[in-house]
Amino acid sequence: MLASTAVSTRRSTCLTSPADLGFAAIPAPDPLVHAQARRRVDSLTKPLGALGRLEPLAVRVCAVQRTLRPTIVEPVAIVFAADHGIATRGVSAYPRAVTEQMVKNFLTGGAAISVLARLEGADLWIVDAGVDAELDPHPRLLDAKIRRSTRDFVTEAAMTRDECLEAFARARAVIDRVVPSASNLLLLGEMGIGNTASAALLMHALTGVPLADCVGRGTGLDDAGLERKRAILASALARRAAPTDPLELLVEYGGYEIAMLVGAFLHASSRQVLLLVDGFTVSVAALLAARIDPLVLDYCVFGHCSAEHAHRALLAHLEARPVLDLGMRLGEGSGAAIALSVVRAAVRLFTEMATFEGAGVSQKDG
Amino acid sequence: MLASTAVSTRRSTCLTSPADLGFAAIPAPDPLVHAQARRRVDSLTKPLGALGRLEPLAVRVCAVQRTLRPTIVEPVAIVFAADHGIATRGVSAYPRAVTEQMVKNFLTGGAAISVLARLEGADLWIVDAGVDAELDPHPRLLDAKIRRSTRDFVTEAAMTRDECLEAFARARAVIDRVVPSASNLLLLGEMGIGNTASAALLMHALTGVPLADCVGRGTGLDDAGLERKRAILASALARRAAPTDPLELLVEYGGYEIAMLVGAFLHASSRQVLLLVDGFTVSVAALLAARIDPLVLDYCVFGHCSAEHAHRALLAHLEARPVLDLGMRLGEGSGAAIALSVVRAAVRLFTEMATFEGAGVSQKDG
Repeated sequence: MLASTAVSTRRSTCLTSPADLGFAAIPAPDPLVHAQARRRVDSLTKPLGALGRLEPLAVRVCAVQRTLRPTIVEPVAIVFAADHGIATRGVSAYPRAVTEQMVKNFLTGGAAISVLARLEGADLWIVDAGVDAELDPHPRLLDAKIRRSTRDFVTEAAMTRDECLEAFARARAVIDRVVPSASNLLLLGEMGIGNTASAALLMHALTGVPLADCVGRGTGLDDAGLERKRAILASALARRAAPTDPLELLVEYGGYEIAMLVGAFLHASSRQVLLLVDGFTVSVAALLAARIDPLVLDYCVFGHCSAEHAHRALLAHLEARPVLDLGMRLGEGSGAAIALSVVRAAVRLFTEMATFEGAGVSQKDG
Repeated sequence: MLASTAVSTRRSTCLTSPADLGFAAIPAPDPLVHAQARRRVDSLTKPLGALGRLEPLAVRVCAVQRTLRPTIVEPVAIVFAADHGIATRGVSAYPRAVTEQMVKNFLTGGAAISVLARLEGADLWIVDAGVDAELDPHPRLLDAKIRRSTRDFVTEAAMTRDECLEAFARARAVIDRVVPSASNLLLLGEMGIGNTASAALLMHALTGVPLADCVGRGTGLDDAGLERKRAILASALARRAAPTDPLELLVEYGGYEIAMLVGAFLHASSRQVLLLVDGFTVSVAALLAARIDPLVLDYCVFGHCSAEHAHRALLAHLEARPVLDLGMRLGEGSGAAIALSVVRAAVRLFTEMATFEGAGVSQKDG
């Protein structure tokens, strides 16, 4: 099944309950609807399984929406943006100012996610979770800034526990403000120079995959830059052993945009919204959220496999099969936005195709 | 590059020239536009290469359309349908009547391609190239029937040379009738119970890949059915050694829908229309067309890799990287139709994204 989940992601490792973190309970999926949807897929005028991965995708949408008449209504895309203390050490191919510059590019419509949100009819919102700049107000920009950048996690924890909890609370407020009750699909993206460094450490601590295998070129580091990034992250692990509690992990190595993504996953799942996951950093946030409440993963569709080195291993750990594999590594929600067109196709095929019986088409021989 | 071509597909092996077969010359792509498009991609606000396969895809559309302002205008989808003499021997999991039944399903809007053409805004036409039934007239059905089914190629040639040439001529007429001069994208699909058997033999003869590796389960043969299909195709090769001339190959083992697809590839390329290729059978037709005029491949985008066994090897032979890999194996043009949304995204990103200079975004460090 698309985005089905590993046993290891099926248990919470969080010392604090979702409720104590302020999150509502996530409803378990309805196995009856799932089974009925599976049967309907097999009744459609095509050989069994011939729609490939579109079939479990449509079934998942049915299960999330608890209906055999699934729809994609008023999709919303949110890009959470923040800066990272670690970025001052040179873990990215781009200067830190690009976070702020790209937020402006999102808002003026020239970024990839701006173009794709228009194309896919998704309502695009940009959230300042912790950009290291004073951003001018804009109708599509939500100020949820926790602080101008996290701290440098080589020398101290990236954020305080209170900041992390505040990021969760603001993520809930953002979702409730920009995802209307009629909306049933939320696409999650991120922007933050240096955030694949943060995500790599988090993945290492969450999965046990060797650190070197969790570290990739991000926006395009050369070999020397990649080695430097690995060495810097190793030095962060020398400061203290990585914790296992997802909240503690966020505090130590997280970013404000990553913390808000975790909050968005948990809160939107409790509202039974289908979640379209973008690339490496957003997938790490999904895994963190699943360690707080594993039911999150029932609401996730992993949009694509990024070319960022570790994403394939992370998806394998999640037992998730991404919709697309186009060699993209841009972030912003861009891969998920393209996957939205495939999700829409899966839903339309499920609801509009004729059945063998209805169309008078003969079944398989023998 | 997406759908770039192997040396072996870069030469004609046809004893008759395209002109003598009735086809107009195919213009070579413009290397200047290609280079300019490549430069523009690198100027957009994203790390170099971060849009992955969407980048060469957009460049290809520019090169085909000879412009740095590419568009997708009035896309047309054509499904060529025909029956196969070989199908009476039981090479398919479905009875032969399904070809006719599915044509009706296409026309009444209940088939996968019907749903996807609506979703993608493509104008859908069904062509009766040789269905073994008298089909009722329908405004979306074009009668180009060469004969009610090909002959059984185990005992005799599937069609005559005149029939093959007539199929080419009718394909040209179909294209000129349903692809308006403003239209710049043509999606090619097929329907024909038994046609993966025909395509497997053609692939074997064209590529030298061992026959067993060219034969797959089609619409869903079990292991015994697969063995039977292989044995039947081997017996066809025992009748006479496979020819190398693409026209002779079509005559021996082809289908009327495959012959018309070959004609459609050649004629639409001469009109400089971008061609969106569906699965295994359509890709075999593309390779046949390329053996008549290799320039065809400059106009092709391979929409997806089918789960039909041999398609991956065929795409490798063509040095083509398909847009999607969703495990689909339905035919009808369904994989190509979903790929259309990705092509559209690539084009929109190319034309609408801001440049680093225009958006005031900093370039890469160092």
